[in-house]
Amino acid sequence: MTGMQLTTEKRLVLVSGRAHPALAHAVAEELGIEQVPVTSYDFANSEIYVRFDESVRGADVFVLQSHPAPINKWLMEQLIMVDAAKRASAKRITAVIPCYPYARQDKKHVGREPISSRLVADLFKTAGANRIMSVDLHSAQAQGFFNGPVDHLWAMPTLVEYVRGRIDPANAVIVSPDAGRIKVAEQWGRRLGGVPLAFVHKTRDITQPNQATANRVVGDVDGRTAVIVDDLIDTAGTIVGAVKVVLEAGAKDVIVAATHGVLSDPAVSRLRESGLAELILTDTLPIPPDKQFPEMTVLPIAPVIARAIREVFEDGSVTSLFSGAY
Amino acid sequence: MTGMQLTTEKRLVLVSGRAHPALAHAVAEELGIEQVPVTSYDFANSEIYVRFDESVRGADVFVLQSHPAPINKWLMEQLIMVDAAKRASAKRITAVIPCYPYARQDKKHVGREPISSRLVADLFKTAGANRIMSVDLHSAQAQGFFNGPVDHLWAMPTLVEYVRGRIDPANAVIVSPDAGRIKVAEQWGRRLGGVPLAFVHKTRDITQPNQATANRVVGDVDGRTAVIVDDLIDTAGTIVGAVKVVLEAGAKDVIVAATHGVLSDPAVSRLRESGLAELILTDTLPIPPDKQFPEMTVLPIAPVIARAIREVFEDGSVTSLFSGAY
Amino acid sequence: MTGMQLTTEKRLVLVSGRAHPALAHAVAEELGIEQVPVTSYDFANSEIYVRFDESVRGADVFVLQSHPAPINKWLMEQLIMVDAAKRASAKRITAVIPCYPYARQDKKHVGREPISSRLVADLFKTAGANRIMSVDLHSAQAQGFFNGPVDHLWAMPTLVEYVRGRIDPANAVIVSPDAGRIKVAEQWGRRLGGVPLAFVHKTRDITQPNQATANRVVGDVDGRTAVIVDDLIDTAGTIVGAVKVVLEAGAKDVIVAATHGVLSDPAVSRLRESGLAELILTDTLPIPPDKQFPEMTVLPIAPVIARAIREVFEDGSVTSLFSGAY
Amino acid sequence: MTGMQLTTEKRLVLVSGRAHPALAHAVAEELGIEQVPVTSYDFANSEIYVRFDESVRGADVFVLQSHPAPINKWLMEQLIMVDAAKRASAKRITAVIPCYPYARQDKKHVGREPISSRLVADLFKTAGANRIMSVDLHSAQAQGFFNGPVDHLWAMPTLVEYVRGRIDPANAVIVSPDAGRIKVAEQWGRRLGGVPLAFVHKTRDITQPNQATANRVVGDVDGRTAVIVDDLIDTAGTIVGAVKVVLEAGAKDVIVAATHGVLSDPAVSRLRESGLAELILTDTLPIPPDKQFPEMTVLPIAPVIARAIREVFEDGSVTSLFSGAY
Amino acid sequence: MTGMQLTTEKRLVLVSGRAHPALAHAVAEELGIEQVPVTSYDFANSEIYVRFDESVRGADVFVLQSHPAPINKWLMEQLIMVDAAKRASAKRITAVIPCYPYARQDKKHVGREPISSRLVADLFKTAGANRIMSVDLHSAQAQGFFNGPVDHLWAMPTLVEYVRGRIDPANAVIVSPDAGRIKVAEQWGRRLGGVPLAFVHKTRDITQPNQATANRVVGDVDGRTAVIVDDLIDTAGTIVGAVKVVLEAGAKDVIVAATHGVLSDPAVSRLRESGLAELILTDTLPIPPDKQFPEMTVLPIAPVIARAIREVFEDGSVTSLFSGAY
Amino acid sequence: MTGMQLTTEKRLVLVSGRAHPALAHAVAEELGIEQVPVTSYDFANSEIYVRFDESVRGADVFVLQSHPAPINKWLMEQLIMVDAAKRASAKRITAVIPCYPYARQDKKHVGREPISSRLVADLFKTAGANRIMSVDLHSAQAQGFFNGPVDHLWAMPTLVEYVRGRIDPANAVIVSPDAGRIKVAEQWGRRLGGVPLAFVHKTRDITQPNQATANRVVGDVDGRTAVIVDDLIDTAGTIVGAVKVVLEAGAKDVIVAATHGVLSDPAVSRLRESGLAELILTDTLPIPPDKQFPEMTVLPIAPVIARAIREVFEDGSVTSLFSGAY
Repeated sequence: MTGMQLTTEKRLVLVSGRAHPALAHAVAEELGIEQVPVTSYDFANSEIYVRFDESVRGADVFVLQSHPAPINKWLMEQLIMVDAAKRASAKRITAVIPCYPYARQDKKHVGREPISSRLVADLFKTAGANRIMSVDLHSAQAQGFFNGPVDHLWAMPTLVEYVRGRIDPANAVIVSPDAGRIKVAEQWGRRLGGVPLAFVHKTRDITQPNQATANRVVGDVDGRTAVIVDDLIDTAGTIVGAVKVVLEAGAKDVIVAATHGVLSDPAVSRLRESGLAELILTDTLPIPPDKQFPEMTVLPIAPVIARAIREVFEDGSVTSLFSGAY
Repeated sequence: MTGMQLTTEKRLVLVSGRAHPALAHAVAEELGIEQVPVTSYDFANSEIYVRFDESVRGADVFVLQSHPAPINKWLMEQLIMVDAAKRASAKRITAVIPCYPYARQDKKHVGREPISSRLVADLFKTAGANRIMSVDLHSAQAQGFFNGPVDHLWAMPTLVEYVRGRIDPANAVIVSPDAGRIKVAEQWGRRLGGVPLAFVHKTRDITQPNQATANRVVGDVDGRTAVIVDDLIDTAGTIVGAVKVVLEAGAKDVIVAATHGVLSDPAVSRLRESGLAELILTDTLPIPPDKQFPEMTVLPIAPVIARAIREVFEDGSVTSLFSGAY
Repeated sequence: MTGMQLTTEKRLVLVSGRAHPALAHAVAEELGIEQVPVTSYDFANSEIYVRFDESVRGADVFVLQSHPAPINKWLMEQLIMVDAAKRASAKRITAVIPCYPYARQDKKHVGREPISSRLVADLFKTAGANRIMSVDLHSAQAQGFFNGPVDHLWAMPTLVEYVRGRIDPANAVIVSPDAGRIKVAEQWGRRLGGVPLAFVHKTRDITQPNQATANRVVGDVDGRTAVIVDDLIDTAGTIVGAVKVVLEAGAKDVIVAATHGVLSDPAVSRLRESGLAELILTDTLPIPPDKQFPEMTVLPIAPVIARAIREVFEDGSVTSLFSGAY
Repeated sequence: MTGMQLTTEKRLVLVSGRAHPALAHAVAEELGIEQVPVTSYDFANSEIYVRFDESVRGADVFVLQSHPAPINKWLMEQLIMVDAAKRASAKRITAVIPCYPYARQDKKHVGREPISSRLVADLFKTAGANRIMSVDLHSAQAQGFFNGPVDHLWAMPTLVEYVRGRIDPANAVIVSPDAGRIKVAEQWGRRLGGVPLAFVHKTRDITQPNQATANRVVGDVDGRTAVIVDDLIDTAGTIVGAVKVVLEAGAKDVIVAATHGVLSDPAVSRLRESGLAELILTDTLPIPPDKQFPEMTVLPIAPVIARAIREVFEDGSVTSLFSGAY
Repeated sequence: MTGMQLTTEKRLVLVSGRAHPALAHAVAEELGIEQVPVTSYDFANSEIYVRFDESVRGADVFVLQSHPAPINKWLMEQLIMVDAAKRASAKRITAVIPCYPYARQDKKHVGREPISSRLVADLFKTAGANRIMSVDLHSAQAQGFFNGPVDHLWAMPTLVEYVRGRIDPANAVIVSPDAGRIKVAEQWGRRLGGVPLAFVHKTRDITQPNQATANRVVGDVDGRTAVIVDDLIDTAGTIVGAVKVVLEAGAKDVIVAATHGVLSDPAVSRLRESGLAELILTDTLPIPPDKQFPEMTVLPIAPVIARAIREVFEDGSVTSLFSGAY
Repeated sequence: MTGMQLTTEKRLVLVSGRAHPALAHAVAEELGIEQVPVTSYDFANSEIYVRFDESVRGADVFVLQSHPAPINKWLMEQLIMVDAAKRASAKRITAVIPCYPYARQDKKHVGREPISSRLVADLFKTAGANRIMSVDLHSAQAQGFFNGPVDHLWAMPTLVEYVRGRIDPANAVIVSPDAGRIKVAEQWGRRLGGVPLAFVHKTRDITQPNQATANRVVGDVDGRTAVIVDDLIDTAGTIVGAVKVVLEAGAKDVIVAATHGVLSDPAVSRLRESGLAELILTDTLPIPPDKQFPEMTVLPIAPVIARAIREVFEDGSVTSLFSGAY
């Protein structure tokens, strides 16, 4: 054939934004590779500068960024990195987004609101991302916001395995902190071999009009170890309210497990004073030392992300990593 | 100024597919207009032919189609109508989709599944729809699947108003037929002035391994009128299971209310034999005479759709139609 | 280089819709591979569910579907399969469409019609198809409807080879059943070494006003074996009319050859009673036993499709398969 | 309502490229308007400069260009004008393309060819054209190449009306110059009240191998006035061959009618010497004085284009202009 | 005509982000309208919430945002507002961006950099902006980054008019602070009636190797009032260096004029100590009281923006606002 | 795994338009390959026909075209070749555009102009180009016009190396022919080890009103070898004016160096008579013998393009080719 011919090699490249270097380091270590170094800094006017210090031409580039506050800055940094990778002729770009920003603004609750979660998906597409990888999306429907493949990873197996060693399934109850998260609680119950469920319901006593809303536990928690599960903990208001009412309803003790530890103020002080026995999170977001406290356990998410990246690179199966997880 | 100048007139046009002519007729009547007649038929090989019998050039065209079985046929018919309107120089095209097809396939439950609900949104966009109007989407996130404005109408106020006249709020309970629909039940409870909630939970007795799944009511229904609410009723398995377990748990009587009456076999026979006191639906889907029975009440959805179309055409506010509804 | 490096392997995957499993089986056999199994069924409300039972990540996926009636159902099933393959990270997706649906609606005959053939091309693009492969498109211009590569396969060489063995070229005539298909007839004539042409023309005797349309043969068929050729046979009205008028014009006998056997009612009874000597079709569409009759010969299209798939996968040349065919 | 409100006026603007100023002038005159003046010239290196001399903000802009040789220059000029109109905030842009460039390259005849006709449609879309208006497209399928509305105008009624006055329908025959254009001839026959058809067929005498191709008239022309019809005349080889063979077959005299007079060399000398009685064209392309000769009649296309522009601007019906034409 | 008809009204709506409320207020006042109120705040985790408090359906919406630090936050806020306007069925959306963010990253200076200025244009398009309005883009080429109309406003006439009253043109010199901005200086010179030019050139004395770079004035400034002009002042390093070298070269006094006052630290202290006689800026960016000092004059940009918005809304001519400005 | 597996080979293919065959030949020779032969010619009506004579399926195709006058023709030819490569299933298409057409129309100088340089980028994208490779873009911002990777090659190192051998850096001066190109001159100065700068400034003596514009040298050229540098020479008016004024200002001799030799009339006669000592160009555009003269040196650009193509094909680094060049 006229022209020139070569056997095709493919190359995995990992680059990272500045929001959570420890996570990028851990993922690279799990993969047994070095990250491609990136020059990135803020200009005086707060614009971000990014440059890859090594060629990524033709590479399968994974652009990892975590999204703590200031979330808009880290989002823009990742978009700019994706743009740079596109213009540097990367072959394929996967935006790795452990805790998807604006995940909770996934619908119009009332008219004239944005759907920022869809917007974020479109921004990634526009910047040049071919694929997205994320962990425990707030609503699974967000997979449909991105016009391309989404690898939806699950931290739940990791959390469940850890919790399994801390409870007696025969004397536990999985508690959803509000009505909307019961599906997740059901999955916990199933994975732990059939642990019963309860949920906390915000209600108003209709026999006494004009009285304020109060929480009420629906389901039986008396004498049991209650495991309150959620996808993320932000200011912890809902969670701490749930801990309180579950304890009042007679729970023996309370464990709280969530994937994403946003921990905006005053989450930490609330949680410390809530009476919970243990708080279990993963490090999809950085949890700085001043937010940590003795009852908090942080499980590493890097093994999950690294295994998924490897499967994606090697055309393996991400689904198989979570068989039984759904 | 060089050229020619005219005051701009705008024109509302309603055209309808063949799946539910009574609904189109009712919407046109509520609007006080005639539909633009459409020639449409099936070729021998089951391909669909469509042509508008009157010019729609420059018009604000609303293409109404309902989606009962065979759902793929009616979907393609609507896509073809949208294409014809686009090529006929319609100024703006709104696909009116009372019961959104494939609404339940809104995420990948496991790997290698499609997200057909997003696909449907994209197909409408591709055919040429500028906007979508739908009623009670299965998951509100589906609004984010369409890349453009979505007018999300609510049948719930219509249903709630009707139910309010049939129950004593002080002696009623709103029941979600499974854990995933509790948010909707909460809205019902709130709109009815604080009626308490319950939900049906599929469970397994963990003290007795290998035993089959059973339903259990979480919450108090004893002696009350239970109002089981859902967005749609398909084969009615879940709903009838809920009716049964709620009655066993001591409910005085059971009313079932849902927006979309899909009523696939054997829904009707199951519902008739379930012991429910009343089944309330709207006519977003056609309910043929042989599927109706004495305990069924069908509320017209045309007033809601017609008012929304008018607001859209006149640049009014669809949000205002549902103030307080969310 | 920083990162991880691998030699790239590529993998051919064949998956099939449910419309014509025998064809998929035959194509797989010609390729010497197994199909990736697919779970697909209809929900009670006629929505379609699809899932691939094995990873297709990184694969060169060929999604084969035939499009008999109900054509809209099989079209949607294929679109959903393409969507699933896209979201499952297939590297490249080719929609294999032996008989392109809505091929005849390829232009606006009058105002306010759709161009459904272009719409179908756009729907495939939107769902995620990178390429299309089809056989004997009704109008070759449809290649231009798809925004990407189209492999246009030819069944004609297969049909011609078969017919060559059934006729004496020196005493045959190729007949186009209407004026619009003469180009195809010319190609037949050329490939058979210069067989003369004729065509059937619908006309009205202008010396006798108000008289109905009648067919007339233009060209000489007297005493010859007439080979009537077309791309598809739907209700067979045109073809049977042509058989009749050709026999009346003195043809010795009549062979009918077409690529696509749509055979909508009452095609089969018409054809059986038409007096044709042989009807030759390929199996781009399934031809169920109750539509077959002694004078019908069905040639397998699988060898053509399989060879083209192999050339596409191996970066060979599809053009070379049909050298001399155009 | 908060903000500021105004009644909307719409404004029709006509601008023209430099290829055929007489046509633009005639269209403006038919519309009773002035063109917006345009500054356009070639730079020394043959790049084109364009600027509108008046604001077109918010206007309904029709960008008219004819496409004689050098066709690529005039095409680029029109694309650049569309771009300028888009960036100048035109509300809607219609590219008026009387004779669509590259219309004959509408499919791949063999592998590795472009489909330039589709490419041209995409280039217009990319430049910013919302709509296309063209006259007698070479293949009607090209309507489907543009992703938006196409107003397909017909010169045939104009040509037919003229020819009707020159022939005796009872003693005429419509002749298609090759097999592929018979559909057009059929429409002529129908519009003229049932005039019979014939066509010229390129053939090879199979009883005498190795002999060259020759033309043959299929159908009866003896003693009749033959009207040879086609969409365009380029080098006139096919047409002149048809004139010759039709005269040899005994036609009384020959009239040739076509919409587009490309008239590339040596068309004019061939036609003058062909023995035709009259050649009828429209001025979709400029026909310079040195290409005109006594037997040539050029009918103005401006009335057709102007009426269509007016209907488009006023949201009337273009279809109605050609009722009965198809 | 079938349907319903109305005269079209159009409505101008102005909404503003939170970065520079005084500018939005001033623009609204110039237009003589009220802004549509917007609810916007930060969530605890720094995500932004936005909602329009009034319907914008069918309106011509201008979304105004200024972009001081933290620039990524204000950019995301504007993108979210555009998304909300799109989903609220605004008819047309213009993003008003007085000082375009990331304007200086308009090309790859070296490989593997992003082109963030193009990225920003694409993000606005993706969010739903139909048009962009900006003032004194850093490079005029950025107009070509947005795929749609860009209204490029000029602050220079405003600055020039002010400066004209402060200098004697016969005894002044326009100074470009570096080689790349001389074109702008030329325009100043022309508008002031032919004031001569000079520029500051960073150089190295080649007769003394290894010596550091130094500034040098090219052109004659001795005894003249030097007007140093630039598009923006960020940290003021370049500008202050130019002031110094121009004074050293014998300038009588120095005026600095620029459109955009970014004024990142340590700009203010540098400028105060530089010896300049007057610093003239506009308020495209907010200049908080603690950044102001006696020699600083801030000219209002609102009149320019408001006039342009009015021209856009009324389909007038923005070009005419700046006739002679280019 | 189910299916069929192969090791992936990649194949480089070079095809060329007809504008500058010598360049294509030289690039192929540098690469050590043959070009894939292309059939291309003009139809009588000036439409272009193109076909690749060999399969390019799955190949990494580089479509090389130079753009002398008639520029629109050669541009369309390249677009058509890209379309053909796309439809022929090329894996990746790079449009190689040594001298980017319409590069100088990169912004709106006044309202209602096009931005033809952006338009050209979009046309390439639409036709199917995945990447662009060009040499010394008129404005580097044009890299941002293309939505994908742009390999921006530099001829300057080649030119500088050559000039270095012709001058004494200690006694030279780099001259920008107008204010807008000083940045390029600065790069020349830096690469030559710190040669000083000057520029030619068009000015008007303000003490003598109504007098015509005149050129003036800003900076010191007396007694030095002046190297006037520019990106392209079209009619040479600016350059020749600069040569004149520089000689008048006492320069010892003048060398002119530019990448692109457009050389439209009357460039050659002007340059010959200008008194320049040497004119140095590259052959990004063909320079026919009748435009050459003794003082002209044409450096080959093929080595630069060939090395860049090889790096792109082999996933190497184009940046590394020009390290130090920026």
